[in-house]
Amino acid sequence: MPTYTPPLRDMQFVMHELLHVMDDLQQIPKHAELDADTVNAVMEEGGKFASEVLQPLNLSGDMEGCRRDAASHAVTTPKGFKEAYRQYIDGGWAALACDPDFGGQGLPLVLNQMFYEMLNSANQAWTMYPGLTHGAYAALREHGTDAQKQTYLHKMTSGEWTGSMCLTEPHCGTDLGLMRTKAEAQGDGTYKITGTKIFISAGEHDMADNIIHLVLARLSDAPPGIKGVSLFIVPKFHVKSDGSLGARNGIFCAGLEEKMGIHGNSTCQMVLDGAVGTLVGQPNKGMQGMFVMMNAARLGVGNQSLGLTEVAYQNALAYAKDRIQMRALTGPKSKDQAADPIIVHPDVRKMLLTAKAYAEGGRALMTFCSMLLEKEHYHPDEKVRKDSGEMLALLTPIVKAFITDNGWTATSGCLQVFGGHGYIKQTGMEQLVRDARINMIYEGTNTIQSLDLLGRKVLSNNGATLRKFGKLIGQLVEEEGVNEKMAEFITPIAILGDQMTKFTTEIGFKAFQNPDEVGAAAVDYLRVAGHMVFGYFWARMAQVALKEIASGNTDTFYVAKLQTARFYFAKLFPETATAMRTARSGARVLMDTDAVFA
Amino acid sequence: MPTYTPPLRDMQFVMHELLHVMDDLQQIPKHAELDADTVNAVMEEGGKFASEVLQPLNLSGDMEGCRRDAASHAVTTPKGFKEAYRQYIDGGWAALACDPDFGGQGLPLVLNQMFYEMLNSANQAWTMYPGLTHGAYAALREHGTDAQKQTYLHKMTSGEWTGSMCLTEPHCGTDLGLMRTKAEAQGDGTYKITGTKIFISAGEHDMADNIIHLVLARLSDAPPGIKGVSLFIVPKFHVKSDGSLGARNGIFCAGLEEKMGIHGNSTCQMVLDGAVGTLVGQPNKGMQGMFVMMNAARLGVGNQSLGLTEVAYQNALAYAKDRIQMRALTGPKSKDQAADPIIVHPDVRKMLLTAKAYAEGGRALMTFCSMLLEKEHYHPDEKVRKDSGEMLALLTPIVKAFITDNGWTATSGCLQVFGGHGYIKQTGMEQLVRDARINMIYEGTNTIQSLDLLGRKVLSNNGATLRKFGKLIGQLVEEEGVNEKMAEFITPIAILGDQMTKFTTEIGFKAFQNPDEVGAAAVDYLRVAGHMVFGYFWARMAQVALKEIASGNTDTFYVAKLQTARFYFAKLFPETATAMRTARSGARVLMDTDAVFA
Repeated sequence: MPTYTPPLRDMQFVMHELLHVMDDLQQIPKHAELDADTVNAVMEEGGKFASEVLQPLNLSGDMEGCRRDAASHAVTTPKGFKEAYRQYIDGGWAALACDPDFGGQGLPLVLNQMFYEMLNSANQAWTMYPGLTHGAYAALREHGTDAQKQTYLHKMTSGEWTGSMCLTEPHCGTDLGLMRTKAEAQGDGTYKITGTKIFISAGEHDMADNIIHLVLARLSDAPPGIKGVSLFIVPKFHVKSDGSLGARNGIFCAGLEEKMGIHGNSTCQMVLDGAVGTLVGQPNKGMQGMFVMMNAARLGVGNQSLGLTEVAYQNALAYAKDRIQMRALTGPKSKDQAADPIIVHPDVRKMLLTAKAYAEGGRALMTFCSMLLEKEHYHPDEKVRKDSGEMLALLTPIVKAFITDNGWTATSGCLQVFGGHGYIKQTGMEQLVRDARINMIYEGTNTIQSLDLLGRKVLSNNGATLRKFGKLIGQLVEEEGVNEKMAEFITPIAILGDQMTKFTTEIGFKAFQNPDEVGAAAVDYLRVAGHMVFGYFWARMAQVALKEIASGNTDTFYVAKLQTARFYFAKLFPETATAMRTARSGARVLMDTDAVFA
Repeated sequence: MPTYTPPLRDMQFVMHELLHVMDDLQQIPKHAELDADTVNAVMEEGGKFASEVLQPLNLSGDMEGCRRDAASHAVTTPKGFKEAYRQYIDGGWAALACDPDFGGQGLPLVLNQMFYEMLNSANQAWTMYPGLTHGAYAALREHGTDAQKQTYLHKMTSGEWTGSMCLTEPHCGTDLGLMRTKAEAQGDGTYKITGTKIFISAGEHDMADNIIHLVLARLSDAPPGIKGVSLFIVPKFHVKSDGSLGARNGIFCAGLEEKMGIHGNSTCQMVLDGAVGTLVGQPNKGMQGMFVMMNAARLGVGNQSLGLTEVAYQNALAYAKDRIQMRALTGPKSKDQAADPIIVHPDVRKMLLTAKAYAEGGRALMTFCSMLLEKEHYHPDEKVRKDSGEMLALLTPIVKAFITDNGWTATSGCLQVFGGHGYIKQTGMEQLVRDARINMIYEGTNTIQSLDLLGRKVLSNNGATLRKFGKLIGQLVEEEGVNEKMAEFITPIAILGDQMTKFTTEIGFKAFQNPDEVGAAAVDYLRVAGHMVFGYFWARMAQVALKEIASGNTDTFYVAKLQTARFYFAKLFPETATAMRTARSGARVLMDTDAVFA
């Protein structure tokens, strides 16, 4: 059975020693009174909920899966899920970072992100039930009417009601402009919505009294394509004016998908049969609200794979120390035993360090992004809000695609550490790999993320935001350029930073002549950009560690951080060499393939 | 539902146009009369069996899995498996390449390999039942006594009886020297064997009348470690002198593992409770027979992932042509439709071409290796036998690890082409990924393969066999060095061939000072060596294609081959740049990690 220990020490390191989040938070009026002790105490309690309540339900939830009763359309979640959700509400966890106007605790988003990392480590499938609520909450809060907010946000904040995002249809996923679900105005401000949605995570379940579906549909007079899509709230149960539940609405679960992983989460085919909903935002502008949900969700998906990477690492490390098999290549290490623990083998260490370096690099980036999100929404200075939003827009596809690709590599490597035992369900490793696979697909496939990064976030503003990130690297190079001890960390990112400018310009120039060059280079480009960003954070983590060691701090945490940074730059960062080369080889070899694909 | 079409055209290309296997086979007395038409006809029939009988059982077999009856220890395979096996025997497929002395058809091993590629494409889990028999057959044929051969090999040849390999125990997988299963001589030439084996594929099932287990165990006076391990035959049912089945032996299935994939194959915990067996080969020399099984099995595992890569490619290609979603970056292509088929997108093509290039490169290598195996055993010239055996020994870990790593990348990429639909069981793509995962683990993990390649096959003879492969590259460079059209294929392998010598010497030198340098570099080294080998075959395939095109052949097959070769060298081969760099970064960053792993 897998285990999980919340990585509180590393979380504190990232928050307080690397990013100094309290300094930033204190500039934001609503957090001015918050102190680090409170933050750490909340994380400690959150970690207990994750490791003690959720983690023990992960393997059993995978084995059992969800069930649907055909007659009632009711979905039953795995044993213990409902009770754990009750504890989650009772503990106030749903309300952690929500708006106090609706009963939220108003704590910083960074706490919610770290809390969710732990939930994801413990049980990704369970965590998707409350997780989906956040996206719906954010869209309603930003685009809903006062009446809608009053009707729904209190119960969504408390967690008594959950949310869902109903976008995909059988014939359209990436291309939402093809959508067919129809909404007809009833003349009373409501709409009757009819259509079929698929792949609706948490679309139906037994954990909450009501489910607030955010549904994309097309008004009868809508223009064709993506510009004719509107967003609606469709509650499972209507809500009466006194807030109590009314009649059942015409939206129900017509089937559950059988999937590779996340078995504990219900993936529903949802049928809307004249379901009554109200419009969110303007007619035909549904994508605005959708993007609020989607951007939050993309960060959330990166966080899912961060959580999986961390827990895979912890379990593979424990196994590698415990499992004895063969002798070290340099001669016996555990002479009193019949063989050495497999952690003596270089390649076992490589697989472990890969997961560790990706987890800790991912945590630094995620946390940096949570602070950008906080500042984008709540910083008193408009310029800070704008700059934060832009930087976050650049980094979001990297969080989503780079961390989830890394999570796939890392969880698979951690499975490999277990040898044949990793392939067996009971050790829990193969579940992590299966669960990790969806994160590369949903909320925009990783190919779509790479096109978003290169096409929309980089080339469309001629690399302006990218240069801002380059400035952060430049600052670090300036600070540490003469520090010999930092050279091994600074040199590679300084070189890559310079290369990126040329590389980006080259692709931009080629794309001007042939738009397929963007599509051909984008995935490789995202890998390079991801390492630029991870390289920056790993260099900064090494900087902090070196300073602590120099000042006489004997906590081995800092030595470990330094050793992991060295590993990262030696074994993972060089992926950029191949990725730049393959990106440069261009679109021709992909597109001049008429005979292959005839 | 996934589909499968046997790639007969490409198989014929590899056999007859690339490797000219008939020329080699005609030098082998027992195949002197064989002609290409017969070979092709057998493959066509074999392909029908795979696509029409086995493939329709693949998804259902995965969903249903195997069941065990606790009282009788009997294992029931998924619906249809038993009947398909009956057809397999009745069709004479089990006997295809077996020795006519025991009722085999004596056809070349290359036919068996290609037939098995098709079986693996259609249904890897099913194919493991007959597949395991081949290893046991080979070990008995090489190391068994005449009596043992007469007793067992006829029925194993016909397929009426299957085989298993009982090696792993709960505490020992890679390190068989730790084995505890005991064998006590009974004074009558038989042994009583007691112990527990795990992960025994096809250890118990309902498809054959008898199961012939090859069991590793330790004699009571055996020296400790791997030099005290002996090999035994332990039949499920004893065989009477007239060949009929006698009493049930004391070996039974105590449980089935629940696994990530290959659900249709029974992975058994086998308990030997005083089971009676006879010794194969010499006492304490069990590893000799084991290695016969293991080497055959390692080639077989590469062939499994080759099959999965091919079928994943076929299904992803069909989906990419059918699924319409978004417009091409260069403007609409299917103007009469609401969107373009996703094959217009460069990255979709990249994922498809990756699978295609890995499948076709893998098929060329597999076939080359089957011919080496044939020549090692049956060529009249002793020097050819010896050289073939050495080259095969070098290439075996590459077949096993490179093709299975590529299979993981390729099947996962083909799943990604399906977007969210790839994550759903019904499309069959996620099963291919789950099935592919075990191939990187069993029969020696891919890390073990890389140590075998670098340590045992390359460094231990100072690169002598590697230089022989280098000579093949040298010949091709000489043949085509002035042909401008071949430059794009010849230049990269010529450069890599030169680099390999230096690279290998460097690692050898470092390893001399620190053996961990081998363990640190081995996995990267295997990736580089794999591309050297694939690069060689892709250059030769391009050579054949260019010649055909130049001679006026208008079959687009050759154009497709050339386009795929270009893709391979542009997008996959450059992995060597990163792998050489990370290999060179050495062992220190992995092993100086005391604080990380404290």
